[in-house]
Amino acid sequence: MPGLLERYRSYLPVTDRTPLLSLSEGSTPLIYAPHLSQQLGCELYLKYEGLNPTGSFKDRGMVMAVAKAMEDGADTVICASTGNTSAAAAAYATRAGLRCIVLIPDGNIALGKLAQAMAYGARIVAINGNFDVALNLVRDISASHPIALVNSVNPYRLQGQKTAAFEIVDELGSAPDILAIPVGNAGNISAYWMGFREYRSAGRMEALPRMYGFQAAGAAPLARGVDRVENPETLATAIRIGAPASAHLARAAVSESGGLFDMVTDDEIMEAQQLVAREGVFCEPASAAPVAGLLKRHAAGQLPAGQRIVAVLTGNGLKDPNSAMRHVATPVAVEAQMDRVLESIL
Amino acid sequence: MPGLLERYRSYLPVTDRTPLLSLSEGSTPLIYAPHLSQQLGCELYLKYEGLNPTGSFKDRGMVMAVAKAMEDGADTVICASTGNTSAAAAAYATRAGLRCIVLIPDGNIALGKLAQAMAYGARIVAINGNFDVALNLVRDISASHPIALVNSVNPYRLQGQKTAAFEIVDELGSAPDILAIPVGNAGNISAYWMGFREYRSAGRMEALPRMYGFQAAGAAPLARGVDRVENPETLATAIRIGAPASAHLARAAVSESGGLFDMVTDDEIMEAQQLVAREGVFCEPASAAPVAGLLKRHAAGQLPAGQRIVAVLTGNGLKDPNSAMRHVATPVAVEAQMDRVLESIL
Repeated sequence: MPGLLERYRSYLPVTDRTPLLSLSEGSTPLIYAPHLSQQLGCELYLKYEGLNPTGSFKDRGMVMAVAKAMEDGADTVICASTGNTSAAAAAYATRAGLRCIVLIPDGNIALGKLAQAMAYGARIVAINGNFDVALNLVRDISASHPIALVNSVNPYRLQGQKTAAFEIVDELGSAPDILAIPVGNAGNISAYWMGFREYRSAGRMEALPRMYGFQAAGAAPLARGVDRVENPETLATAIRIGAPASAHLARAAVSESGGLFDMVTDDEIMEAQQLVAREGVFCEPASAAPVAGLLKRHAAGQLPAGQRIVAVLTGNGLKDPNSAMRHVATPVAVEAQMDRVLESIL
Repeated sequence: MPGLLERYRSYLPVTDRTPLLSLSEGSTPLIYAPHLSQQLGCELYLKYEGLNPTGSFKDRGMVMAVAKAMEDGADTVICASTGNTSAAAAAYATRAGLRCIVLIPDGNIALGKLAQAMAYGARIVAINGNFDVALNLVRDISASHPIALVNSVNPYRLQGQKTAAFEIVDELGSAPDILAIPVGNAGNISAYWMGFREYRSAGRMEALPRMYGFQAAGAAPLARGVDRVENPETLATAIRIGAPASAHLARAAVSESGGLFDMVTDDEIMEAQQLVAREGVFCEPASAAPVAGLLKRHAAGQLPAGQRIVAVLTGNGLKDPNSAMRHVATPVAVEAQMDRVLESIL
């Protein structure tokens, strides 16, 4: 399958001068989940974005943003990030022959989260300040230097991300009844909604889905109906965001689609991560939030039966194996004799 | 794209009674590597098997082995493993509704390597004995109980793995001149060779490739022409094997194809891993061995120019991020002021 810029060229801001950059992103599997479907009384599919080249949905937006940076003659891209964004930025920058600079907030950053960006050869600068300070610095630097900013304020990011909605419709033949998705910075839910609307305008589908956005309870400004949560906290680090940059777009998506925001606890998220793994799919904690949310609403009698639902699993479980391991049984140790082993397994 | 059992059904031991088990394995990207191609004076493509559902090529063989276990009425599968095999076995077993038991040698096993198997719900038993002891135990158990053995002694594993050769030919329109691949237990090189020959018999291709198998210098019985290396050692843990189970098949593949075995040091492997990452592809250390081998041979004037080469990257870098991080530059720390940041990056 070609990369996204080629596959969906006519729906993207791709001009004759835009390089068709690709690491074979997109075209990720839509996996039917038999056990969860039965549990929910619905038809549930998992859009497994963890099989993108750097292991998360961020590749969809980054291939577009970096291709446009190339088109505009930039030789360097920059972002503030501690996680999936930096991996995607570094991978596409090196693929494009551009330099990549990643500013990380100083302090409690796990080096493991940056393993990919480091491997892809990004220049990583730790500053003594929080994420907002880092974001302001990269904004200032890109405003005054020929360095392209590829944080989510870059409008090409959502353009690339909307292609996931196209793929779902291309595969199912129509949009699902419900699109359930984790909400952190709120860009992805906005991108899907844009994608569904554009595909309908193009005559590729008819009925739009209802957009269900699920947040972690400790970082749930949209579900709580407030502008900002101070000191957001959740194990699902990819959605640990107190003031979503795309809040206005996400609210419009939910309101226009007849959808909803809801929130789930970290325990519900980790339980859902295990249930998703039992379908054979290993996702990172944030990705399990929409599944947790669907289960919660079903238990409360708030999920209509018989719906066709797609839950977006935004990232690969290998991004954060430690958090998964804290919640599963540890190995048992036995003597190396057949009867001892059999006792322990039968 | 359908799963492998459906896509290549007519080339596989799939009967009317074989369930078409799938986690959307296979159909992995073949990524052109511009910088390495220039360096080698060849046309190099990377077959990125790290984008299989559990992050390694093992999924190709495991989907076949577990589907046949289902067909045969097994309710449990078992394997001895410390790495990628256990992840694949656990994922397909849970998908199929079977129990999965993983025996791990006791001692210095990093729990991180088992995170996936644990998440997928496998029953993990640590025994006080080495890998050979564990393998003998699972052989004995499967011989005396209705439990299917899915280690590489299971012949269906190679049947599934040969599909990667089909995909390369389907994408390139012919086989490459050279297929370069890591060699540990030697099953994968044997499976590719089987795949190329079958595709030629079926009239899907003409010229066969030369098979280049690369081992780590500390675990290189085939490259050294010996039957066994005692105490194999290499950072590339996925190919740290002293007595390859499929040695005879691998020797036949190399001999029949006019290929070769060669070996590379751990330093050469880690250097190659970085060069592959600079193409935008993050692979685990073992996967970098064939690239390291091609670079070594080119430097020695032992690689013909202008060849079309496919290097098989067997696993995702996220499987082993720590080893990659030990070999790249660590972040620099600076004050959160624009001029300080600029000094450090420009």
